[in-house]
Amino acid sequence: MDTGPTTAAAPSATRDEALARDAADPLARWRDEFVIADADLVYLDGNSLGRTPKRTLVRLREVLENEWATDLIRSWDHWVDLPQRVGDRLAPLIGVGPGEVVVHDSTTVNLYQLVHGACALRPERRVLAVDPGDFPSDRYVVDGIAAATGREVRHGFDRLDDVAVVVRSVVDYRSAEVVDVVSETARATEAGALVVWDLSHAAGVLDVDLHGAGAQLAVGCTYKFLNGGPGAPAFSYVARALQAEITQPIWGWFSQQDQFAMGPTYRPRDDIGRMLIGTPSILALTAAECGIGLTAEAGIAAVAAKARHLTGWAIELCDRWGLRTCTPREAHRRGGHVSVVHPDARALTAALIERGVVPDFREPDIVRLGMSPLTTSYVEVHDGLHALAGLVRAAG
Amino acid sequence: MDTGPTTAAAPSATRDEALARDAADPLARWRDEFVIADADLVYLDGNSLGRTPKRTLVRLREVLENEWATDLIRSWDHWVDLPQRVGDRLAPLIGVGPGEVVVHDSTTVNLYQLVHGACALRPERRVLAVDPGDFPSDRYVVDGIAAATGREVRHGFDRLDDVAVVVRSVVDYRSAEVVDVVSETARATEAGALVVWDLSHAAGVLDVDLHGAGAQLAVGCTYKFLNGGPGAPAFSYVARALQAEITQPIWGWFSQQDQFAMGPTYRPRDDIGRMLIGTPSILALTAAECGIGLTAEAGIAAVAAKARHLTGWAIELCDRWGLRTCTPREAHRRGGHVSVVHPDARALTAALIERGVVPDFREPDIVRLGMSPLTTSYVEVHDGLHALAGLVRAAG
Repeated sequence: MDTGPTTAAAPSATRDEALARDAADPLARWRDEFVIADADLVYLDGNSLGRTPKRTLVRLREVLENEWATDLIRSWDHWVDLPQRVGDRLAPLIGVGPGEVVVHDSTTVNLYQLVHGACALRPERRVLAVDPGDFPSDRYVVDGIAAATGREVRHGFDRLDDVAVVVRSVVDYRSAEVVDVVSETARATEAGALVVWDLSHAAGVLDVDLHGAGAQLAVGCTYKFLNGGPGAPAFSYVARALQAEITQPIWGWFSQQDQFAMGPTYRPRDDIGRMLIGTPSILALTAAECGIGLTAEAGIAAVAAKARHLTGWAIELCDRWGLRTCTPREAHRRGGHVSVVHPDARALTAALIERGVVPDFREPDIVRLGMSPLTTSYVEVHDGLHALAGLVRAAG
Repeated sequence: MDTGPTTAAAPSATRDEALARDAADPLARWRDEFVIADADLVYLDGNSLGRTPKRTLVRLREVLENEWATDLIRSWDHWVDLPQRVGDRLAPLIGVGPGEVVVHDSTTVNLYQLVHGACALRPERRVLAVDPGDFPSDRYVVDGIAAATGREVRHGFDRLDDVAVVVRSVVDYRSAEVVDVVSETARATEAGALVVWDLSHAAGVLDVDLHGAGAQLAVGCTYKFLNGGPGAPAFSYVARALQAEITQPIWGWFSQQDQFAMGPTYRPRDDIGRMLIGTPSILALTAAECGIGLTAEAGIAAVAAKARHLTGWAIELCDRWGLRTCTPREAHRRGGHVSVVHPDARALTAALIERGVVPDFREPDIVRLGMSPLTTSYVEVHDGLHALAGLVRAAG
């Protein structure tokens, strides 16, 4: 597979087409909000780890020097509700209201909490439903809760009339296929099941309308398309109508009413704060806030439109260059990445990285190319796929 | 209570004594490793939020600019085991070995995991024991697990022969009283109970020897005496002998063997990594690593010795100035803070903060003065207590 290093693709009519799309891109200026340390790098993995916003460097320095080092413990007066404030910033990106989202802990922890809470709302039902092809943590969390509570795990969603909780990703992490949240929420609700939606691969790239879909519970990630930093805290959404009745299994002091009274008995808050657990990392939340803020300012409708255009462009190039993709061709049925299927996907991914093109590999045969609307350019998509097509051709 | 602002205490023979102690302090130079933004501030709350290490500013900038912004997703090659590496750095501070500690999530989450895991190792026992005066999260976590698993909560540790799990803080967060970990671990073990020690107020200020005590499970905090930053991740310790058999309730992809194979079935790692859950915050872990490193370099024996001297000095001043303290007088029986008891404690704390002296208030009647060995000076302790004594006299 060694065909020698390639740098940027040579000029061509197709590349000119990409440059023209960049010139006409209404979101192009947002790339200037990010640190682009190596202008030659073709970064197509913003769906795994988003780029670094410039404002994150500035804001973290302020928090370190002014809020931590100077004001010290006194900063907790305003840090204490940062999970809620960052949640309010994120809420419009997923179609929900203020006071319905908190940013905290990790997707796995938050999913664990919500699935537990949803189970307690359907005590008479003993089945949890999950897609056997869903992201590992989603499946493992469901398996763990089922094992601990004597419930049964069902793979797939055909039958829901005895299901307590459905756990389901809106965007498939391999193919990028999007589930119809409106019809699937309605179908589950009609069958008496609660759905915990996982928006990890959707938040910040799809214009998700949870209220419009009648969705009541969701979790998701802020380090992918929301550019919140490596391992940034996740989010939990609980519809206002459910907040007073949902319970959660991990009883910590941050979900306690009148937290600093440190009273003898656990009495959870009756708002979204009841999903909190222990003391949140202020540094991690600060970075998440900066990333989320950029997408909020650009506007999720515009961001989602660019995602459709970028992925459409990628699919068009795959077709032109004979690369096979498993990502849906209808724009509304796909998320923010395009997956090329090839038996040598692992070696191809490694060879691309050597050449300064960064996608990622997913078992067993996927080269996954992420398109992050605020930072990915059409010419980057062109150059990345051009390099991939060249490697595939050379390998014969 | 308004007696007007006071700044630094006036010169006196007692203050000269404090200055002499500072001059003779072998750890004095470590204060230079921290940002001291306001040299006049008397900061006696390092037991709630430690000060900012200078190296944290430098290191976070490197991580932000080089590892995140430049190397992007490729940095996960070395980030992926950062929870273990920071754990190894922390291990000697609590008397355990490499491969026995991970730094991750929050004290509440980690305690929840370990209590669950310990319960599963004592399935025939239905009692959980906790101190009714312990820190709220400790009590609430125990109450939550008992409620979820049909167990009984016992307040106090007199009877242990039917207890599955003891949850106990090594240092009382109000009085600073230290539990004898050696004898109490032995007593519990003899009775067939497992102890989950909470080292939150002990780590980085006491020379805890968990191996020497035969302790097998512990959690603790890194944002207090370990100076890891606001809401820094906590730690979990599981003795090597228990690692292959302990289970945990939150099944996430970071505890999975061969994590990136993303296989169909959850198979937890057989090392300390099985306590991990979801993707950890690299920014938060980086700050924790810097703080922990400072105490490791200074040496926990020297750090603990200075804590005893600082708190001894504080108690001596309380005696001279007629302030009542509930903190033990025997040096080996107290942690790193001294608590002054006064019916007006809340108002006194507020008045001190107005005067540039920062302790904290704990219900119902405690002014808690934290002494962080790497940053607190003897003269700071003098000036803080001098201001407090003045306020008490003026009110009296």
